[in-house]
Amino acid sequence: MAEPLFRRLAIIGLGLIGSSIARAARGSIAAEVVASDRSQAVLDRVTELGLADRAEIDPARAVDGADLVILCAPVGAFASLAEAIAPHLAPGAILSDVGSTKRSVLRDVGPLVPDGVHFVPAHPLAGTEYSGPDAGFATLFEGRWALLTPPPGTDPGAVERVAEFWRRMGSMVSVMEPAHHDRVLAMVSHLPHLLAFTICGTADDLADETRQQVLQFAASGFRDFTRIAASDPDMWRDVFLNNRDALLEMLARFTEDAQAMARAVRWGDAGYIEDKIERGRKIRRSLIEIKQA
Amino acid sequence: MAEPLFRRLAIIGLGLIGSSIARAARGSIAAEVVASDRSQAVLDRVTELGLADRAEIDPARAVDGADLVILCAPVGAFASLAEAIAPHLAPGAILSDVGSTKRSVLRDVGPLVPDGVHFVPAHPLAGTEYSGPDAGFATLFEGRWALLTPPPGTDPGAVERVAEFWRRMGSMVSVMEPAHHDRVLAMVSHLPHLLAFTICGTADDLADETRQQVLQFAASGFRDFTRIAASDPDMWRDVFLNNRDALLEMLARFTEDAQAMARAVRWGDAGYIEDKIERGRKIRRSLIEIKQA
Repeated sequence: MAEPLFRRLAIIGLGLIGSSIARAARGSIAAEVVASDRSQAVLDRVTELGLADRAEIDPARAVDGADLVILCAPVGAFASLAEAIAPHLAPGAILSDVGSTKRSVLRDVGPLVPDGVHFVPAHPLAGTEYSGPDAGFATLFEGRWALLTPPPGTDPGAVERVAEFWRRMGSMVSVMEPAHHDRVLAMVSHLPHLLAFTICGTADDLADETRQQVLQFAASGFRDFTRIAASDPDMWRDVFLNNRDALLEMLARFTEDAQAMARAVRWGDAGYIEDKIERGRKIRRSLIEIKQA
Repeated sequence: MAEPLFRRLAIIGLGLIGSSIARAARGSIAAEVVASDRSQAVLDRVTELGLADRAEIDPARAVDGADLVILCAPVGAFASLAEAIAPHLAPGAILSDVGSTKRSVLRDVGPLVPDGVHFVPAHPLAGTEYSGPDAGFATLFEGRWALLTPPPGTDPGAVERVAEFWRRMGSMVSVMEPAHHDRVLAMVSHLPHLLAFTICGTADDLADETRQQVLQFAASGFRDFTRIAASDPDMWRDVFLNNRDALLEMLARFTEDAQAMARAVRWGDAGYIEDKIERGRKIRRSLIEIKQA
């Protein structure tokens, strides 16, 4: 077994992602895992499940002496969390996170990082529709991408240690510019979730009798949408609010395209509709070819 | 084993649905299965796979002497198919279909049904993203709904035989008014597919570099969308064109809701966003409770 990469890992936020990191990292990747969560109930559950060596409700105590700190709370909590822990970060420690929006993390956390602490934001592209410490599992990150968005001038050694951390979790690693990350993720993840949440609301607004049948006869298309829509509300509220510009841009592009499709349906433009459907199939085939499907 | 319900079943169109019916019905539910498809290649494959007792390129010959005929082609082909087979339908035969749009089937097929032939349109809510005779499987309809939309005055005995046909396929059966069917299906199936096709096109329009990364980093949200979007183009083109009014109404409702969500994102209305996400979760929970998820 490889030498642990870190002596002490502090995980702030023990939801699906944080608890999966704890399960996968404890012992082999980090010699010691300290868990912190704003919820005592979550920490009690983490202790019951034996996911960490120590549980601390106070994030400042949790990061004390840690050589790797990973923020796993919803991104909207990052500014106040960074403020709370910054004075307590050990010199030479690495501060990272798993947030789905990277410009906001640079903006909210970056200015608070003390000299001598390495700031290496990251985003593992993994998740399920379940939430909380019971939902995590050690293999969540296997075969998935972890995107790193270090600010200019970050110590390459620290970036490499975070990259190695994710490789040992089974992930593929790529370094990316934060604004580019936010645009790509707005398209492949944030917009699909916004559409899924929205269509559930649209269905919910139908008259009572119809709604019952919407549920009763839910065909496969709608079932997939509701699966996406079951994801954690706090996390997604924060993602939408913290990737506003890219998300609104992608939604505007999508809305134009949906209106063009509506026009084709209204006027019976079969060729246009076929072309759009074929493009969907093409993207699907590409996904299968690059083994992401 | 129960006595076969029909002596001779003619299936017109041997794609995913038609070939699944052939696999499930042959022998036990229908003593003899005759397959017809406009494509000789499909019929050759049906023969190779041993899915039917006889293959006929001419649908008029296929329906000859059949006591149950099921149209399994894309709904846009129903009018010309009905014209071709109508004079050849046996007295007392039942004419049914599996089309996803029921008002159009009543409109296109209904007037052509000869006296003495029973017309019982049906729609099994089942499918996958794969197409063609190789994609079918005998258990496709198990535990899924089959919706029957017989026109007023249809012989109750004929409706019951079609209901029993689908029950023997493992389906749950419900009788529904065609316009109501089309609205419910527009919401739970047609609109989700339109959105899925559209978002794939929107992604495809991104700049080349970004598109590569859209594919490379496709997160789970987008993967689910592309799975939906891989469905059969001819079938979906016809569904959109033949459920125009209901689909455009649901799309208009959805677009209003998406614009309201966009406004909430732009103005940072966290409460609104949380409410919409919670409604998505609520619908998801309802789906799980009624065991459709």
